[in-house]
Amino acid sequence: GFVSTNAGGTKVIRYGMTRDAVLGLEAVLADGTVISSMNRYIKNNSGFDLKQLFIGSEGLLGIVTRVVFRLSVKPKTHQVALVASTDYESIVQSLNAVQELLGSDLCGFEVMWDNFYSKATLPYGPHKSPFEDSYPIYAIIESMGINQENDESQFMTALEHMLENELIVDAVIAKSDAERDAIWAIRGEVEWLVKDAANFDVSLRSADVAAYIDDINAVIRKDLPDALIATFGHLGDNNLHVSVLPNDEREDAVHLIEKGVYESLVPYHGAMSAEHGIGFERKPYLGISRSDEEIALMKTLKMTLDPHNILNPGRIISVD
Amino acid sequence: GFVSTNAGGTKVIRYGMTRDAVLGLEAVLADGTVISSMNRYIKNNSGFDLKQLFIGSEGLLGIVTRVVFRLSVKPKTHQVALVASTDYESIVQSLNAVQELLGSDLCGFEVMWDNFYSKATLPYGPHKSPFEDSYPIYAIIESMGINQENDESQFMTALEHMLENELIVDAVIAKSDAERDAIWAIRGEVEWLVKDAANFDVSLRSADVAAYIDDINAVIRKDLPDALIATFGHLGDNNLHVSVLPNDEREDAVHLIEKGVYESLVPYHGAMSAEHGIGFERKPYLGISRSDEEIALMKTLKMTLDPHNILNPGRIISVD
Repeated sequence: GFVSTNAGGTKVIRYGMTRDAVLGLEAVLADGTVISSMNRYIKNNSGFDLKQLFIGSEGLLGIVTRVVFRLSVKPKTHQVALVASTDYESIVQSLNAVQELLGSDLCGFEVMWDNFYSKATLPYGPHKSPFEDSYPIYAIIESMGINQENDESQFMTALEHMLENELIVDAVIAKSDAERDAIWAIRGEVEWLVKDAANFDVSLRSADVAAYIDDINAVIRKDLPDALIATFGHLGDNNLHVSVLPNDEREDAVHLIEKGVYESLVPYHGAMSAEHGIGFERKPYLGISRSDEEIALMKTLKMTLDPHNILNPGRIISVD
Repeated sequence: GFVSTNAGGTKVIRYGMTRDAVLGLEAVLADGTVISSMNRYIKNNSGFDLKQLFIGSEGLLGIVTRVVFRLSVKPKTHQVALVASTDYESIVQSLNAVQELLGSDLCGFEVMWDNFYSKATLPYGPHKSPFEDSYPIYAIIESMGINQENDESQFMTALEHMLENELIVDAVIAKSDAERDAIWAIRGEVEWLVKDAANFDVSLRSADVAAYIDDINAVIRKDLPDALIATFGHLGDNNLHVSVLPNDEREDAVHLIEKGVYESLVPYHGAMSAEHGIGFERKPYLGISRSDEEIALMKTLKMTLDPHNILNPGRIISVD
């Protein structure tokens, strides 16, 4: 599952997607042929890299039956802070600053707009905001390294730099595992939101995110004036999550929301699925991000490797 | 070229192969179709990741015409040391130690056996060994970070740890750009060797490298007793380079060397081309590292995408 969907997560900025961790795999083709590409090496240019066919293709080209994962040395230190800013541009500059100041120790940069954060920290809810005031936008910054003394002072220096330059206006640093968990829980425990909402997972350039959020608010609220739109995501990976509660009885509410979220991506050349894949539900919108030629090539691959369309039929593309 | 061959280099341990840096590309298929997959995002699971077809496939499936590369923040500090050990096992333990002690700052770990090093530092040659004594095996260790004070002391601590634990028995640290260049030149300027030698580029587990080198010495010297065999490579990526001067007039000398180097890989499940690709010359040996089913699937892809076999015909696989 991990491999067939090329799963992501909150540490992609440092460790990459699942694809980046797969050295080798074994897959069974539609005709029963076993393709054993159990490579164990970082470097292997011995012919086509066949494993790539099966990573992220949602089981349409073969069934992954064995995997060789590349492991990393576990870091020894762990720093987490929650910061607040007055505007999106300052958050983008904060990301640039920590990429510069924390280098490859940076492993998470998770942004929450107030439309998300204020709902996640409601007074009667399970999570409390550690700030007295509320702000337009927040970020969780996470770093992991190997040297306690250096890493803590480096993390503090980065936060001080952002405060002094007014990239952030408030910050709390977790001082224990419990405090780290409490900060991440604000972002991580989103059942309150995703249960009833239409949920989206798009990629676009960080420079375009603010304009895109304005666009979807305008287009969705035109038809659904009471819609609740929450935005959050892994800004370091260009990945934005959008969750929309229609707050409207219209039967076509979800359809209107989907059209608004996906069609607004077109001018920004955004990707309509960053890590959640396509499956059935997003299939009608694949053309938002992929050209006719690309979709035709996907179909060619599917028909070549699975001519009877027996592997996960109907997902991603239609071939019959 | 970089993309079609999935080029590597000496910093793969930190930055990966070219494949890892390609976010998107445009390729022209054999029938003239332009596949524009100019993705700019780290995360994009919007259908099959078609760009992977064209990376490292040596132009057989399409011609890469545009590329989107992912860039990294340039590090600010640069540490280089040349170390010497009494045996291969100590070098493997040194690699483990620096991966632990330097973390993601480690960007190069380049091993040279004495069969290479002593030739690269001959008294009348351009490169001098900074050591008074000679040793069985050497390594260049390179690290790059963002904090001068921390990185230098961290690098020193790692070297002291290795000396104290007798993983290494001698070391010099470069104190200037010129000294860094001089150390790398011993490894990098290998024209003296590769001009007349048969050169190989294989991957195998670091635990198997010493036995494999014994094997190829035995099998090659059986037929070519005066052969000069030099070994060096990027141990952190499992990548070993082998260069062999036959020192023999036999017409089949190169063929005997190729058979010896490649067939000795089989018991170790090694890869017969780590970063140099297959092309024409290595094509007869592709079966050393890839199964019949894998080669059949490569041919299926080739015949599907290039039915008239007009793109780089005859490389990697034969389809007519």
